[in-house]
Amino acid sequence: MTGQLEARSATTALARLSINQATANSASLPQLIEVCRAAGVSAVGLWREPVRSMGVQQAAAMVTDAGLRVSSLCRGGFFPALDAAERARRIEDNKRAIEEAAGVGTDVLVLVAGGLPDGSRDLGGGRGMVLAGVAALVDHARAHGVRLAVEALHPMFCADRCVVVTLDQALDLAEQFPADVVGVVVDAYHVWWDPNVGEQIRRAGPRILSYQVCDWTTPLPAGVLVGRGMMGAGAIDLRRMTEQVRATGYDREVEVEIFNEELWALPPSELVGRVTSSYLRHVAPWA
Amino acid sequence: MTGQLEARSATTALARLSINQATANSASLPQLIEVCRAAGVSAVGLWREPVRSMGVQQAAAMVTDAGLRVSSLCRGGFFPALDAAERARRIEDNKRAIEEAAGVGTDVLVLVAGGLPDGSRDLGGGRGMVLAGVAALVDHARAHGVRLAVEALHPMFCADRCVVVTLDQALDLAEQFPADVVGVVVDAYHVWWDPNVGEQIRRAGPRILSYQVCDWTTPLPAGVLVGRGMMGAGAIDLRRMTEQVRATGYDREVEVEIFNEELWALPPSELVGRVTSSYLRHVAPWA
Repeated sequence: MTGQLEARSATTALARLSINQATANSASLPQLIEVCRAAGVSAVGLWREPVRSMGVQQAAAMVTDAGLRVSSLCRGGFFPALDAAERARRIEDNKRAIEEAAGVGTDVLVLVAGGLPDGSRDLGGGRGMVLAGVAALVDHARAHGVRLAVEALHPMFCADRCVVVTLDQALDLAEQFPADVVGVVVDAYHVWWDPNVGEQIRRAGPRILSYQVCDWTTPLPAGVLVGRGMMGAGAIDLRRMTEQVRATGYDREVEVEIFNEELWALPPSELVGRVTSSYLRHVAPWA
Repeated sequence: MTGQLEARSATTALARLSINQATANSASLPQLIEVCRAAGVSAVGLWREPVRSMGVQQAAAMVTDAGLRVSSLCRGGFFPALDAAERARRIEDNKRAIEEAAGVGTDVLVLVAGGLPDGSRDLGGGRGMVLAGVAALVDHARAHGVRLAVEALHPMFCADRCVVVTLDQALDLAEQFPADVVGVVVDAYHVWWDPNVGEQIRRAGPRILSYQVCDWTTPLPAGVLVGRGMMGAGAIDLRRMTEQVRATGYDREVEVEIFNEELWALPPSELVGRVTSSYLRHVAPWA
């Protein structure tokens, strides 16, 4: 009886958990969907490349048939380039990403700004290209019922991956556009260090389109991309941040996105089991 | 004749260059002083450990005899600890650092806050310990004619090295104390990514006690500590930042602090030669 109650309680607690596909980087999409379904996970966050190689419609059908939702599609963006024709090509590619998001059944396209163009030191210029890029997508996004979620990445990625590095900066950008089309991602890994993150989350309010969690562990590996840890393994006060996000009224999925080679080496079912138990312990009670 | 003019011009341009001892990590202090003197470098930034192993007075005499100045002593700080007795021990150690700074002939002691205590996720608490630590040092610093320079480190060091991660945050802390005792370091490597760094440098104004330069290069190495590049090798717009610092009236040394294993492997004279030529090209014209 206790076991049944606990099982029901866990199912409820998992109702908003989404596992980002990159967390299970070694699993195929069918494998990920099957282990998520079996584990009671409610949603998945998808990436463009595997979705496109399977076919957008087929990926959408597979998720729906398993009774899951798609919480977001990763990712558009990467706007800065020195050559105007290249910038235009990237905007066209972002329009395809918008269509893919709609096609796969999510209203959230995550945008990672992109880093400095090769050899450039003009951060202000790069940031201006990001603003222009988002502006060029707003109508297309609205027409497809997709919202653009600007993600601030940790400042250690500023040069080579994302010139948008704080939640305030993402909001300064997003607020230049209607709230029903442009919002932000709050990814705990990227913003936890910010002395003003609590105020920024309050400011973000209904602009928060995605809340992502993992943990900050040290030492960082070479390249710093795949050093993320399971929730509870690191320095981030996930309880506090989750409460701050909830206080804004956020009721969308909580997406677990962990880039970690040790986790990628696990069988998908074990990986998803670890994610759900870590999520239930360190995030769900406050989500 | 042109050669003589250029030589005089370079000497003038080097008048404010200081080479931090960590940049020449493989050189002994006597070696560093000799190559700096020979190259026309005006000052050195010293570290506590090598100064103490040589003896504070002897280190001071060696620098002075070579006609050099000491721009700063690295470093005090590392305040957060869960145990009150341990925090008190660290404050005592910082008092020794103040005395060593005075003894070695500099009025600037660089403070690196310290990371989260082991197992702690309480960033606010850790930051409070830093504030309390600085407060406990102000009288001792003033009595020794030493100014405490709070350094914001890049947010990628927040967990394990320095919970002070933006210049604004360093200023919020410093401004709780008199400007003649507590100021800040502006280290280009640590703050270049910040969308508001220009405003923060203006705000810092006369609180800037040290301006440090190197460059941001990618990919970052494992552990991310020794991935700094020579000025001009990376993404930082050093001209712009140097102009911003100069606009505050800053006229102290410009200290080159590069943690880089390839540079450490060079003979000290070649390393210092590279530093001076990079400084003359990428920093000095705007300093």
